[in-house]
Amino acid sequence: MFEQLFKSIQEKVTLTQDEMEVCKTFFIPKKLRKKQTLLQEGDICIYNAFVEKGIMRSFFIDEKGNEHIVQFAIEGWWITDLSSFLTNTNSIYTIEALEDCELLLFTTEAREALMEKIPMFERYQRLLLQNAYIANQARINSALTETAEEKYIKLGIAYPGIIKRVPQHMIASYLGLKPETLSRVRKKISNRL
Amino acid sequence: MFEQLFKSIQEKVTLTQDEMEVCKTFFIPKKLRKKQTLLQEGDICIYNAFVEKGIMRSFFIDEKGNEHIVQFAIEGWWITDLSSFLTNTNSIYTIEALEDCELLLFTTEAREALMEKIPMFERYQRLLLQNAYIANQARINSALTETAEEKYIKLGIAYPGIIKRVPQHMIASYLGLKPETLSRVRKKISNRL
Repeated sequence: MFEQLFKSIQEKVTLTQDEMEVCKTFFIPKKLRKKQTLLQEGDICIYNAFVEKGIMRSFFIDEKGNEHIVQFAIEGWWITDLSSFLTNTNSIYTIEALEDCELLLFTTEAREALMEKIPMFERYQRLLLQNAYIANQARINSALTETAEEKYIKLGIAYPGIIKRVPQHMIASYLGLKPETLSRVRKKISNRL
Repeated sequence: MFEQLFKSIQEKVTLTQDEMEVCKTFFIPKKLRKKQTLLQEGDICIYNAFVEKGIMRSFFIDEKGNEHIVQFAIEGWWITDLSSFLTNTNSIYTIEALEDCELLLFTTEAREALMEKIPMFERYQRLLLQNAYIANQARINSALTETAEEKYIKLGIAYPGIIKRVPQHMIASYLGLKPETLSRVRKKISNRL
């Protein structure tokens, strides 16, 4: 169950065997069936979830009723509403399973305790935050400057697994494109190959 | 010169007197005159800057030639292009002094070395990253959901110093409003007071 998690941790920092055993005791394993939610909009996000198996997504509904996908997370990724999780405020996102999922959850209290116990776990958390910040910034820049085609190609290079496993209308929502636009872009690209 | 920096650090973590002395040796003091730049768009952002005195801003120019302000930083704040700083890639931002400024700069190498030497400095960096992430998220949500008036009032509550010290057209640019819209909002608010 902890295979992907320790792979993710060991890619960034080195933990001893003992530290890994301690780590395990702070996580709550959780299975979700497809379409079940981990977080409902309006609730406080009490968990940070690591995906051992499956795909999760976070999304919100705007005032016109349109759904916007904020993030996908496949095996080896974290998903949460970080602002809600860190500041104990109501979330504006819903987090849902797109396939049957196996997750490892931890609470803010578990996170704080683990960082106290294992300094390398604090470094791991810092590196995750850096990556999350950089990804967020890249996403804002992409929305401001890139064409539909550039956005789709970049997504395909960065996360080929997601394009194959997620319905196209969700890819469109994630990229901020109309489904028709995405389908035109896909056709154009496949004609060139 | 290090007064504001140590205030910022001690608000988040506790350093010993010795650790503070070590800290000092890793920072480069730098004065900038009004309108001088710390970073030019297209360059790699090699410094993270702490503002001891003055106001800095970061901004970018879109393809239509419009200027967008990303961040202001007054005394006690950090400013950098974090993505460029952390990943050693070219910046899309320019960082400029809006008043005569006194800064404390550190490089990525100094940051890494300090985190190795002083674990509490790593915690401080982690907490800064958390705040930056949360602020970024709040900014995205605000852009998606709030009216011009709500945005202006929130800015005034969060950073009263900035509204008094920065030209109104820059406040408008930061909030993503046309200058005319901001001026209408200001009039409406002052009529109510």
